[in-house]
Amino acid sequence: MGEERTEAWWGRRAWALLSAVRARAPLVQCITNLVSMDIAANALTAAGASPAMLHCIREIPDFTPRCHAVYINVGTLSEDWLPSMRAAASAGRPWVLDPVAAAASQFRMEACLELLALPPAVVRGNASEILALAARSDSSPTFKGVDSSHDSGEVLQAAKALARSSGTVVAVSGAVDFITDGEQVISASNGVAMMQKITATGCAVTALIAAFVGADPSDALAAAACALAIFGLAGEIGMESAKGPASLRMHLIDALYGLDEQTVTSGVKIALLP
Amino acid sequence: MGEERTEAWWGRRAWALLSAVRARAPLVQCITNLVSMDIAANALTAAGASPAMLHCIREIPDFTPRCHAVYINVGTLSEDWLPSMRAAASAGRPWVLDPVAAAASQFRMEACLELLALPPAVVRGNASEILALAARSDSSPTFKGVDSSHDSGEVLQAAKALARSSGTVVAVSGAVDFITDGEQVISASNGVAMMQKITATGCAVTALIAAFVGADPSDALAAAACALAIFGLAGEIGMESAKGPASLRMHLIDALYGLDEQTVTSGVKIALLP
Amino acid sequence: MGEERTEAWWGRRAWALLSAVRARAPLVQCITNLVSMDIAANALTAAGASPAMLHCIREIPDFTPRCHAVYINVGTLSEDWLPSMRAAASAGRPWVLDPVAAAASQFRMEACLELLALPPAVVRGNASEILALAARSDSSPTFKGVDSSHDSGEVLQAAKALARSSGTVVAVSGAVDFITDGEQVISASNGVAMMQKITATGCAVTALIAAFVGADPSDALAAAACALAIFGLAGEIGMESAKGPASLRMHLIDALYGLDEQTVTSGVKIALLP
Repeated sequence: MGEERTEAWWGRRAWALLSAVRARAPLVQCITNLVSMDIAANALTAAGASPAMLHCIREIPDFTPRCHAVYINVGTLSEDWLPSMRAAASAGRPWVLDPVAAAASQFRMEACLELLALPPAVVRGNASEILALAARSDSSPTFKGVDSSHDSGEVLQAAKALARSSGTVVAVSGAVDFITDGEQVISASNGVAMMQKITATGCAVTALIAAFVGADPSDALAAAACALAIFGLAGEIGMESAKGPASLRMHLIDALYGLDEQTVTSGVKIALLP
Repeated sequence: MGEERTEAWWGRRAWALLSAVRARAPLVQCITNLVSMDIAANALTAAGASPAMLHCIREIPDFTPRCHAVYINVGTLSEDWLPSMRAAASAGRPWVLDPVAAAASQFRMEACLELLALPPAVVRGNASEILALAARSDSSPTFKGVDSSHDSGEVLQAAKALARSSGTVVAVSGAVDFITDGEQVISASNGVAMMQKITATGCAVTALIAAFVGADPSDALAAAACALAIFGLAGEIGMESAKGPASLRMHLIDALYGLDEQTVTSGVKIALLP
Repeated sequence: MGEERTEAWWGRRAWALLSAVRARAPLVQCITNLVSMDIAANALTAAGASPAMLHCIREIPDFTPRCHAVYINVGTLSEDWLPSMRAAASAGRPWVLDPVAAAASQFRMEACLELLALPPAVVRGNASEILALAARSDSSPTFKGVDSSHDSGEVLQAAKALARSSGTVVAVSGAVDFITDGEQVISASNGVAMMQKITATGCAVTALIAAFVGADPSDALAAAACALAIFGLAGEIGMESAKGPASLRMHLIDALYGLDEQTVTSGVKIALLP
């Protein structure tokens, strides 16, 4: 380390990562939910990555090893897609998990825990999802699960425990995003509230994390923090022209495509928590 | 009744229902076609509801009982999704059916009739779909089916017969929408013609009916009429800024998100037919 | 022939075909990838066609014979959808193939070759996809496959060979599109580079080719050229208002809907190569 990680340092890091995505156009295989495919693919393309929505298990041995990263999202999980998720997550490429509504059913929770064990480079969810996973994957009786109060201290504790027990970076989305490898905790504070009113923005930003990890797999913690901040920054810029969630969606993707160095370096709000 | 149901009364009713959706954020499980998932989820979210696109049969026992309503749409029906539709429709929650292209095949018609028998709180279709269902579900020889001339008198007669034989509210979309429980007939006259040029607006408004039923299951007839009128009103407002079907789609969803009391109470055009 | 096929002649031909689509509203069954369904259906609807996304094999005997054309796209190919693709391609209707990422896997390549043998009226792909198919479907050792340099002479040679060996029209998308029946080669030069940054524009324009073939099956070569030019022209018009790929997508579809005779006849850039 040596160098102090100021907000300006993070600004330069975020720009370097976005530039790497644009330069390398990482091929990201997405096995994702049926609702989010459009916005996820368009967000990836706007950022400079190359999305590939292949989910057939017979294609994974030929195709997945050629990818820079894999993105798996259980939003519309089904029994026939789960084997492909397992296979793609096991193909030796860095991969990122979105455990959408992890606690929606016993079947889904078990699928998430099984995938988590492979393990991903990054798992990103909201507070409920991360708490639910932490409550199930940690043997300690600390976590009360999704019915708990979600105070941010408890969520952070759960995220760190999940990161340590799973050996993955854990990102928790919210008004402020937290990203942890179990030791360090980074906050990313970009974004606007109306992004919650666009279906699948969470899925799209997890896909973007996969693209950043694919462009530079050396530091998944930084990749996740920078992808979250840059997506949020695009939302802030989009919000200047938006009249509601549908126009925000359009302006956000346009903004993501158009981000320049000055905007990124001065706009991202990332900090290492003490 | 006692109170006279004037257009102003309906305006207040529509606003009360939209306010209930916003306040309660009803969880609506959608087992819907692959084309409409994006617009349906975004319309639900913009209106204040919480969509959940889960279709795996193994999740239904855990998840569906927690939902406020279920939305089932046969647009891209397949043999592997039909058992999930059956199970979700049978889970004890109020549910709404969109019998897209009911007469497209024998397989689809039989699936629709089977689902209709469970029965839904509301079925919404266009004139062809309602005529086709009525012709098959009614034992009387009155209805000639989808090749008939579709005059509005015949469609109304078919809708009322279908409502009575199925024990459901039937909504028929068109230039004017008609909603009936087999006795009363309500008209809803909002909307603009260009909405037909956006793929899956019908699917989206049926999803919205499910959200309204989920927010207030006590009167499915009013819920269906108000959802149809509010969606059409959002289309009218969106049309003021639209330059074609794609911008209309965006402006419609923005407008649905931004609707205020004055606009709804003075804008919806609902009437009880004599 | 007799009449000289000037650019003005092609302008009139393109307008005549778009007018035929609007007048006949051809029913186009789409068995397409999960990512592109929204944009493909909306592009078809905006152009005046009637898309129907049915993929269940049990519906094909009842439904496909009623269609004017069939569109098959292997982007999210799976073992359970392939039999439906085979059945729909064999139903006696003119059909169009989009061999997305044909070389992604052995499974996919074999599926494409099998479908190609049925054969389609038109196959449209990018240079890599057409080269890969030509390398596999031609017995001559001329083609080096997707690792080759993609110089336009070689691509044209491959496209012509594929057209002859398969008995289909082959369209190669690029900065300039080339369309050939194995003898004649037509170029279509409309479009803007940013269309590549919208997910599934290739899928959407192949769907449009199917609509044009459905409206006038007598000349698949002209239908493909005109559909490509008109879609590109809509992109050029959309680009005048676009601020990025998401707004371009919206403006493109609005423009496609609004195209008038003067714009089409003077705007399409089609030429028969000597």
